[in-house]
Amino acid sequence: MAVAVDAMGGDDAPEAIVEGALRAHGDGLSVVLVGDRERVAPLLPRRNAPELVHAPDVVQMDESAASVRRRPDVSVRRTLALVREGRCAGALSCGHSGALLVSALAELGTYPGVERPGIASVLPRSDGGRLVLMDAGANVDCKPEMLANFAQLGSIYAEAMGVPRPRVGLLSNGEEDKKGNLQVRATLPLLRSLDLHVVGPIEPSAAMEGACDVLICDGFVGNVLLKAAEGAVHTVVTLLREEITRRPTGRLGAVLLQGAFRRFRDRVAWDAHGGALLLGVQGLVAVGHGRATPEAVAAAVAMVHAAAGSGLHEQLADRLTT
Amino acid sequence: MAVAVDAMGGDDAPEAIVEGALRAHGDGLSVVLVGDRERVAPLLPRRNAPELVHAPDVVQMDESAASVRRRPDVSVRRTLALVREGRCAGALSCGHSGALLVSALAELGTYPGVERPGIASVLPRSDGGRLVLMDAGANVDCKPEMLANFAQLGSIYAEAMGVPRPRVGLLSNGEEDKKGNLQVRATLPLLRSLDLHVVGPIEPSAAMEGACDVLICDGFVGNVLLKAAEGAVHTVVTLLREEITRRPTGRLGAVLLQGAFRRFRDRVAWDAHGGALLLGVQGLVAVGHGRATPEAVAAAVAMVHAAAGSGLHEQLADRLTT
Repeated sequence: MAVAVDAMGGDDAPEAIVEGALRAHGDGLSVVLVGDRERVAPLLPRRNAPELVHAPDVVQMDESAASVRRRPDVSVRRTLALVREGRCAGALSCGHSGALLVSALAELGTYPGVERPGIASVLPRSDGGRLVLMDAGANVDCKPEMLANFAQLGSIYAEAMGVPRPRVGLLSNGEEDKKGNLQVRATLPLLRSLDLHVVGPIEPSAAMEGACDVLICDGFVGNVLLKAAEGAVHTVVTLLREEITRRPTGRLGAVLLQGAFRRFRDRVAWDAHGGALLLGVQGLVAVGHGRATPEAVAAAVAMVHAAAGSGLHEQLADRLTT
Repeated sequence: MAVAVDAMGGDDAPEAIVEGALRAHGDGLSVVLVGDRERVAPLLPRRNAPELVHAPDVVQMDESAASVRRRPDVSVRRTLALVREGRCAGALSCGHSGALLVSALAELGTYPGVERPGIASVLPRSDGGRLVLMDAGANVDCKPEMLANFAQLGSIYAEAMGVPRPRVGLLSNGEEDKKGNLQVRATLPLLRSLDLHVVGPIEPSAAMEGACDVLICDGFVGNVLLKAAEGAVHTVVTLLREEITRRPTGRLGAVLLQGAFRRFRDRVAWDAHGGALLLGVQGLVAVGHGRATPEAVAAAVAMVHAAAGSGLHEQLADRLTT
């Protein structure tokens, strides 16, 4: 089954989105594009083009997210409708993330017992493993019950990715129970009452070194964590490049290290992942970065295909509806 | 004037602390050591040793911070008393940070109008500048008034470090006013009412690229930001090292890049800074890392000397008591 791609969402839409989707399509990953026929059709090749579903309406970045409730013809909703109708295995949008959230609630709804969906981002860990961070930005203020939901959802996600009994940590500023803010201290007992492998409060640095597989926090803190990590990596890479190009021996060394730098980029690059899953809604939905490049779009399509192949949706449906 | 160093605080105290203090002393930075004479004196050289002030009592890491209120002979309080008495220009402790906070309040008190002191950490930015992050961990739950205090304190600190009219940002998950959590939205109007150069809500990645000089947040979020940045840098360095040592050309390249890597480390290394200032108390107080190495201790002593030389304490006293 194909992955539905909102061709109109993203800073460089539809061009960058279509180019990325075509790249995935060329790699044998089936896609269906959704967008304004007049703008998208000219970007498609004459032969072997993916299917295009027409959606005449587009959400602009400065419009309110709530406005899509009354606009079923908007590209992001049409994209998600393909998932609801069972025509696509999952969906991707790199556009207005608030509008995507409202659309997902309108088209797909949440699983029983899930109050609000959250964004699950996957980060590389220094021990070679991967860390599911949730919520990475959908809900800035969270009640303990929402964080408990995220723990269940994130744990099922990590399991579908191949981690047997995922260790769930609650993001905190120390590993002792008496540390943490009011939210952490109110959430810990609730988390421990669940049938999950809860390892307790975890600091971000420890999580990135492998202390847990799933790290739970509210969307404000999760977004700060993600962007601080990105900012730190950017700073490191910028300053390292400056120092390397300062002397001729450094430049020669850099030539010899090209292969290592490339393999390193492939392993670390957060943006190569290109997308994060919106977990908690009844269907596979990926949130792409607004500034997604064609490469990131292709990577995000591949990620949704992999999630579909892992049986994540079936696992979620099975575990959350019984 | 000397900097008072709590010889008994830190995971490897007193050995690592004394070694670091002696290194600073050897570099011409005057220090006074404070600690248990029986344990510290044997670590000192026979000639040209720094002054040692005896403090018979030590706070253990598992003791409550509040316990130091009744223990004036504890090393951390004796260290701060030297600042109160005007015998030292500033103080450093790498021990129990809660006990340091309680001791600072007991010995020095806060400036008028400052409800709670906060920790100001300095991070490298990718544009070559420096970012004052406050609060980096002293207060996990903050009222808007406390964040406004931090903005004033952080701005005076950045100015003392040589930034003319520091740009103050409020940490958020987006640059629009409508983003942010409840705390951010309650704090913004208050921040804008102050006589400061407030640039508005700022994302961590933008701050690290140079969008502001001072970044304000509560101590929970600030601690997460700091440790996420450290964790990301650690991950990047670990994975890069793995890729570099995988092939012979990479290893040769690494030899040629040794100088660049060393200069890079000196510029980036958060722990080389070794300490952060506890701003808001009436005196210069630095909080060192519990796992501080001798190198970090020496760097922290140098940082306190530099802060004393910049007239930071006088600026704070002048601007906050009128």
